[in-house]
Amino acid sequence: MRNILIIGAGRSASSLIRYLLDKSTAEDLKLVIADIDLDIAQRKTLNHPNASALALDIFDIKQRAAAIEKANLVVSMLPAHLHIEVAKDCIRFKKHLVTASYISEQMQDLDTAVKANNLVFMNEIGLDPGIDHMSAMKVINEVKEKGGKMLAFESFCGGLVAPESDTNLWNYKFTWAPRNVVLAGQGGAAKFLQEGTLKYIPYCNLFRRTEFLEVDGYGKFEAYPNRDSLKYKSVYGLEDVVTLYRGTIRKVGFSKAWNMFVQLGMTDDTYTIENSETMSYRQFVNSFLPYHLSDSVESKMRLLLKIDQDDIMWEKLVELDLFNDDKIVALKKASPAQILEKILSDSWTLQTNDKDMIVIYHKFGYELEGVKHQIDSKMVCIGEDQTYTAMAKTVGLPVAMASLLILNGKITQPGVQLPIRKEVYEPILKELEQYGVNFKEDVMPYYGYKL
Amino acid sequence: MRNILIIGAGRSASSLIRYLLDKSTAEDLKLVIADIDLDIAQRKTLNHPNASALALDIFDIKQRAAAIEKANLVVSMLPAHLHIEVAKDCIRFKKHLVTASYISEQMQDLDTAVKANNLVFMNEIGLDPGIDHMSAMKVINEVKEKGGKMLAFESFCGGLVAPESDTNLWNYKFTWAPRNVVLAGQGGAAKFLQEGTLKYIPYCNLFRRTEFLEVDGYGKFEAYPNRDSLKYKSVYGLEDVVTLYRGTIRKVGFSKAWNMFVQLGMTDDTYTIENSETMSYRQFVNSFLPYHLSDSVESKMRLLLKIDQDDIMWEKLVELDLFNDDKIVALKKASPAQILEKILSDSWTLQTNDKDMIVIYHKFGYELEGVKHQIDSKMVCIGEDQTYTAMAKTVGLPVAMASLLILNGKITQPGVQLPIRKEVYEPILKELEQYGVNFKEDVMPYYGYKL
Repeated sequence: MRNILIIGAGRSASSLIRYLLDKSTAEDLKLVIADIDLDIAQRKTLNHPNASALALDIFDIKQRAAAIEKANLVVSMLPAHLHIEVAKDCIRFKKHLVTASYISEQMQDLDTAVKANNLVFMNEIGLDPGIDHMSAMKVINEVKEKGGKMLAFESFCGGLVAPESDTNLWNYKFTWAPRNVVLAGQGGAAKFLQEGTLKYIPYCNLFRRTEFLEVDGYGKFEAYPNRDSLKYKSVYGLEDVVTLYRGTIRKVGFSKAWNMFVQLGMTDDTYTIENSETMSYRQFVNSFLPYHLSDSVESKMRLLLKIDQDDIMWEKLVELDLFNDDKIVALKKASPAQILEKILSDSWTLQTNDKDMIVIYHKFGYELEGVKHQIDSKMVCIGEDQTYTAMAKTVGLPVAMASLLILNGKITQPGVQLPIRKEVYEPILKELEQYGVNFKEDVMPYYGYKL
Repeated sequence: MRNILIIGAGRSASSLIRYLLDKSTAEDLKLVIADIDLDIAQRKTLNHPNASALALDIFDIKQRAAAIEKANLVVSMLPAHLHIEVAKDCIRFKKHLVTASYISEQMQDLDTAVKANNLVFMNEIGLDPGIDHMSAMKVINEVKEKGGKMLAFESFCGGLVAPESDTNLWNYKFTWAPRNVVLAGQGGAAKFLQEGTLKYIPYCNLFRRTEFLEVDGYGKFEAYPNRDSLKYKSVYGLEDVVTLYRGTIRKVGFSKAWNMFVQLGMTDDTYTIENSETMSYRQFVNSFLPYHLSDSVESKMRLLLKIDQDDIMWEKLVELDLFNDDKIVALKKASPAQILEKILSDSWTLQTNDKDMIVIYHKFGYELEGVKHQIDSKMVCIGEDQTYTAMAKTVGLPVAMASLLILNGKITQPGVQLPIRKEVYEPILKELEQYGVNFKEDVMPYYGYKL
């Protein structure tokens, strides 16, 4: 028996665990599913004979060490900042580690020790980061192997609601951590490269500088730029490209409407609102509007945002029940961002039968034998239900597949790494196709920014 | 002889030193003017027999202690964060201290020791903070003494260019640290109270939410809110007011135009621009605009800002020579804010014969015997020349006057303090009138926000 310890049994672990349990008999696997909440861990075992649940407090040093010592490989689905102590124990007990999180500086610092112990610490192998890396590196390496020269790389990814569950004016529901959606784009200007020129966009203009995308069968999308696209130059070996842009996908019209919250200051997470516990939604809104003796909150809002009452932007606000004076915020010492998250959750929480959707869209520009070409690579994945969501599948399956490949000696290169090498992405992308994660690649003339 | 040690002999020390030298014979004063740059200190002595210059590195502990030990009172005109070591030495050698800076937490922590040694540490006694405190507390205390109840307090202050030197479309020149002007409003939402409702304005909307002010003989001004008006509740004893607002004064139209830089992201000081040393002003501007194959920087700018070429906003940008491709930024690893400061300095630096202007406008709302009243208190001060600027006068004179009052035993209450007590503000406001700092107070019916 090979023992896999999975730490963190939250939403993103569902597909990961089901995959490994399905293979457990054939592959001789034993799963220990650990969570601070034993109940959650228990439910995730699906009562499978090859799975057991463990109540684990990762801050309990002894208990954590004992659990890790018994495993052959550890999967950490903890929040990113909690991986590091698990990682250090993995070195101590010589266990491989797999995570879906960005490599932190602390994690990178372990590289020498990981290599010295001949261990694989595979990170960034979920969706974004994860499938985006793998599907991009596949095309980039194919271009290079043919003797082509990369000119441009644009990459877009979004977690959205499936068309059949798309029932509101924002064409959006929370399919992942709502807090991250509210805070998206904060913390510094977006930086990217367009046709050789470095471009910078401040937060206050981020949602007004979108790009359009079209996906056959799914219609038109938009994307706003991610914070730092430039670091992918070195990671993907794209030192000579003139365009490098990564963005987040939404349905067209979302960003323009979201920008209203940005302009009003409702996404701010740096201070708390006085009396947030007892204030109504309407009072919350009024905090961001000028005082007027007689004008209504609605009138002041339209005036400030310069929109008419028959503007679809206005209808989007009304749909959220923002102006309700009976609904109470009921959060103690909350920031504007926390209050906005609560208001949006009233409207944007997935309903029992709702499905989510993941969209990835890469554009690769390259030159081959003096001719410029472009490859567009697109992937759409729809969730099965509220447990096996598209998000849980796309985050969890690559983690599960990588874990098995490491246990089976198919991924052997030691060190702290991300999935940009062929021995990793080739088998995983191939296997993901069986699970509905299919990239459709189209070759076309190079458009660049000529359109 | 009473010895006054003045540490820091920069621009804001001119009027301060001249005032004390003028009184030095009658008041038996000896001034030691200390600066890291001996030349600057020397020039500020005006070759007066009662002044001597000292080259002082305040990080040289021995030298600093020796200078402070010889003084009867120390004036620190250093940047705010450098006062603390001077203050500690003042306690050690039992010397009074005067500064024009906000009381830092570290400074406040010295209060017990300062009191134990029966010393006066007077802070916030320049212009803003300083004259604003004193002129406000005078009216607030008068209202309270008459049995009135304060309802509202609004206070506005601005350092501007004098009408006779107002020669550009922005009606603005740098009369004080340009860096602070570029960074104004950053670092958190503005918070204030209007008619009982707490209001919050994010940075991206700060310069679009201005109030208008009218000053007889000087025309119309506007003001944008300062970061935190609420702390003045406790400082000024205004616990029951329904309106509390402090703002920065500009000539009408400045803020709307400044907002273009905010929206473009040019005021950001949190990252550095690659190649800032060799890029042209035009390239700098283009970094904040979308890529286009053929559109000019000018066209892209107008499109992004949604302005026509005959809009005065556009002319304001052109006046700054922003689109010049021959002017080079020539700053290494500079932030957008640093580059913008340089570009603006080309246009906004005071010329040899230019004069500056300080404007303060307070509005006090109160109820007396069942009737609501309002007092508007206004002050305009114009500089003499480039040395004895309005800024140098209004910052330096109260510091000088307070120093003399302390030496002469007129200000005696020990402790770390700011000038909100009558024994401090009454003589200083009175004497400031002789130097052209006159507040004109008008009583009128209470307007509140009814207009």
